[in-house]
Amino acid sequence: MRYELYYWPSIQGRGEFVRLALEDAGADYVDEARRPKGMAAMMRFMESSAIDRPPFAPPFLKAGKLVIAQTANILFYLGPRLDFVPKSEPSRLWAHQLQLTIADWVAEAHDTHHPISGSLYYEDQKKEAKRRAADFTAERIPKYLGYFERILKRHSKGGGYLLGKKISYVDLSLFQMIEGLRYAFPRAMARLEPKRPLSIALHDRVAARPRLAAYLTSERRIPFNQDGIFRHYPELDE
Amino acid sequence: MRYELYYWPSIQGRGEFVRLALEDAGADYVDEARRPKGMAAMMRFMESSAIDRPPFAPPFLKAGKLVIAQTANILFYLGPRLDFVPKSEPSRLWAHQLQLTIADWVAEAHDTHHPISGSLYYEDQKKEAKRRAADFTAERIPKYLGYFERILKRHSKGGGYLLGKKISYVDLSLFQMIEGLRYAFPRAMARLEPKRPLSIALHDRVAARPRLAAYLTSERRIPFNQDGIFRHYPELDE
Repeated sequence: MRYELYYWPSIQGRGEFVRLALEDAGADYVDEARRPKGMAAMMRFMESSAIDRPPFAPPFLKAGKLVIAQTANILFYLGPRLDFVPKSEPSRLWAHQLQLTIADWVAEAHDTHHPISGSLYYEDQKKEAKRRAADFTAERIPKYLGYFERILKRHSKGGGYLLGKKISYVDLSLFQMIEGLRYAFPRAMARLEPKRPLSIALHDRVAARPRLAAYLTSERRIPFNQDGIFRHYPELDE
Repeated sequence: MRYELYYWPSIQGRGEFVRLALEDAGADYVDEARRPKGMAAMMRFMESSAIDRPPFAPPFLKAGKLVIAQTANILFYLGPRLDFVPKSEPSRLWAHQLQLTIADWVAEAHDTHHPISGSLYYEDQKKEAKRRAADFTAERIPKYLGYFERILKRHSKGGGYLLGKKISYVDLSLFQMIEGLRYAFPRAMARLEPKRPLSIALHDRVAARPRLAAYLTSERRIPFNQDGIFRHYPELDE
């Protein structure tokens, strides 16, 4: 099966959580919007009235006749197919629950620089962004990081992964969260990381996986930038 | 199977999306935190280090040995069990995708009155709330409502439901969104509803379902109030 991923071609964003799973699994996929005229094709698809089950927004994945949107939903679908989650229903629901918690975290990370509106420039909501980012680094990052550290404490014996012995797509997503937060809030993360050794060890273990390490240094990995979900505005950091 | 639902006992909030499905299906369930000492029991459970797969936040559902959190995940689990979604994987993923889009909408509705921080009072972020709510009513409600109206246009032939002929849990959730938005933003909704006749017809069809109608007028339906996700601050409406 050749998967077709559709996402904004110039940012990591939410699409990156899907890219990481496809890359680490060595899956056959095309990042459609990054091909010549791919962006126009993505927009045409989204606006087409011929699409039976249109996505609300990218990312979405075409898998044969299926079109699946919502990042966590895409990963739920891919999980067993890429051997990135146990096949039992309780384990799949648990992995998905963790992924949805990460999705909430991602949305909050985005809103630090866009607390008023996604259609206004950062500069037009900078004052509000400072207040929201202060709460995010003081309250929300510690709360989420602490939660995942707690999960790792309970489950990682023998493997060091969120689901236990074997890696899952949620581990890749937690890696990506830590990467993104380090880019956006380096000072806050320098303060917060030492208390979460299991999460950082997981991050490092994921980064060292051969396929993922190759991907991260390839041109396919779009660098973090000031258009994505994670943005580095020093005035928003601690 | 007797389901045990855990959610804040004094608000509709995210738990209401689960309550509506359980109520309409006539399922055997207990709203645990609303029982005497139930709130304390919920907090103890969340903080217990003996829980293998702890929720990040309510709502969560106990179903036998399973503990499932994240509203959309709970509904994904309940869907086929309450006969509220077709059993095929593509249909389940599609329903879930719509539900996750509603979850994003719910989070945005919440942030209209708490754009800076969930741990500050509304009064301490009122200025920012006015800006965010203005964007929400002008841009976001129309975008989401328009999306679901478009889905209804494509799928509702013969039945008038989001998935087609048969009702699903997503229809109940769209009903609840419209209810909540009417409570919070009556002027904006009065302006926006006339252009979305299929969504409003769906809302009315859901409200008229015998079990649901009985629930909505019962004491089990917590009235909307100023502690929930949907709050009516006239200064935030159009």
